[in-house]
Amino acid sequence: MCQLLGMNANTPTDVVFSFTGFSTRADEHRDGFGIAFFEGKGVRLMVDAQSARQSPIADMVRRFPIRSANVIAHIRKATQGRVALENTHPFVRELWGRYWVFAHNGDLKGFAPRLHASFRPVGDTDSELAFCWLMQELAKAHASLPPIDELTATLRELVPTVAAHGTFNFILSHGDAVTEPTMLPAHIGSALWAHCSTQLHYLVRQHPFHEAWLQDDDMRVDFAQHTTAADRVAIVVTEPLTRDETWTAFNAGELKVFVNGAVRPHSG
Amino acid sequence: MCQLLGMNANTPTDVVFSFTGFSTRADEHRDGFGIAFFEGKGVRLMVDAQSARQSPIADMVRRFPIRSANVIAHIRKATQGRVALENTHPFVRELWGRYWVFAHNGDLKGFAPRLHASFRPVGDTDSELAFCWLMQELAKAHASLPPIDELTATLRELVPTVAAHGTFNFILSHGDAVTEPTMLPAHIGSALWAHCSTQLHYLVRQHPFHEAWLQDDDMRVDFAQHTTAADRVAIVVTEPLTRDETWTAFNAGELKVFVNGAVRPHSG
Repeated sequence: MCQLLGMNANTPTDVVFSFTGFSTRADEHRDGFGIAFFEGKGVRLMVDAQSARQSPIADMVRRFPIRSANVIAHIRKATQGRVALENTHPFVRELWGRYWVFAHNGDLKGFAPRLHASFRPVGDTDSELAFCWLMQELAKAHASLPPIDELTATLRELVPTVAAHGTFNFILSHGDAVTEPTMLPAHIGSALWAHCSTQLHYLVRQHPFHEAWLQDDDMRVDFAQHTTAADRVAIVVTEPLTRDETWTAFNAGELKVFVNGAVRPHSG
Repeated sequence: MCQLLGMNANTPTDVVFSFTGFSTRADEHRDGFGIAFFEGKGVRLMVDAQSARQSPIADMVRRFPIRSANVIAHIRKATQGRVALENTHPFVRELWGRYWVFAHNGDLKGFAPRLHASFRPVGDTDSELAFCWLMQELAKAHASLPPIDELTATLRELVPTVAAHGTFNFILSHGDAVTEPTMLPAHIGSALWAHCSTQLHYLVRQHPFHEAWLQDDDMRVDFAQHTTAADRVAIVVTEPLTRDETWTAFNAGELKVFVNGAVRPHSG
């Protein structure tokens, strides 16, 4: 099984602490890692077919804090698809003039949709195939970029079709509309979707901030020293990263959308 | 003016020497840099809105030799479009299950094509717009991935439409069909296209290899010590990188395709 990490915040935030804890788990997940940082509408993707433990690229991620309001990371244990750069999550495609980033944990069996539109897998994973199909169906459902709640409603219709074929834990984001997400009303801010088939947890860090210890590592951070009272950040991850914070497990079949660092209430 | 660098080789080759010389020129080109490495069908894109002189990402590129048969790099002096990650070349799109990478040097005036298909710019540069239009028109001209010579013929038809609007020096690649490009016949190998409006140079390094000194830096390399007799690599660049090799200037309006490290003869 692979592992997923997502971050959605109301202000550009560095993910060093969470990524450090997350990449500690790379010993069992040695078939590559990847991390995508949105910076406004742009996306910075760092991938390596090496383990996140040894990779010089992962080392750079841990050393140079990149500030982003939306991050998606993945460490891979190959189940389908060769160990190769083109099979390394997250995957990126452009739709409606925005980059979309997707990472998946799980196996899909017998998922062979017709891809008639403009999204084709480059590698040979079930994950990239599912992403291409989601992009194709979103493109068919909306002529141009709709508000977040409409995207969520469409995803709620589409996702069960894929999830019927196996385990479909995934994180998806189309980044930030602007560089100052706090200035935006919640429904058009910076969005990250997370779907759980079997295993996914989240928490929201906000004022008052506390100290936290990484679960698998001898590292702690006092968020109060690195934040302002207005900051808010949601973390989504396969298994809880810290041992002194309260993580909430997703229910099976649940799709949540995080906007500006908070869970967006179910609108439909 | 921005500067372009491309490499096309018949075996995965590191680009450290050329990139070092190239990034020396970043003082005048401080509005970001980017470099894309194909590794098989996968692509590794490293971009930064900082100058290639200061960027920790550029530093990593100089320190960790990444071996690739197709590389495209760009250093940017913003003329159109804000200094932002989404405006930083190279740009990447997927077409026919392959990633396409594009970098442009020059300005286009009044180029406002109708984009009715599935490629839209994310940022606000004329360059990304031109790339999206090229991708759209390639997708219209061919139902699936054609051989290199057919792609070249289509590009020769399309490029003048864009070039009529200004300076359109560009480098384009869709990477490698396989990880061992030397095993392939030349017409389906690893391809990189380069078009010159005003300024572009190239050379092909092959057996017998010699020593070369960087033009702008106190660095030399003896290629004979790092190569086998079968290796062949083509370098395309805005201005010659070395002072003791013979660079060939492109003619204005010339589109060349490099396959497996050699210029592919004009077939039509």
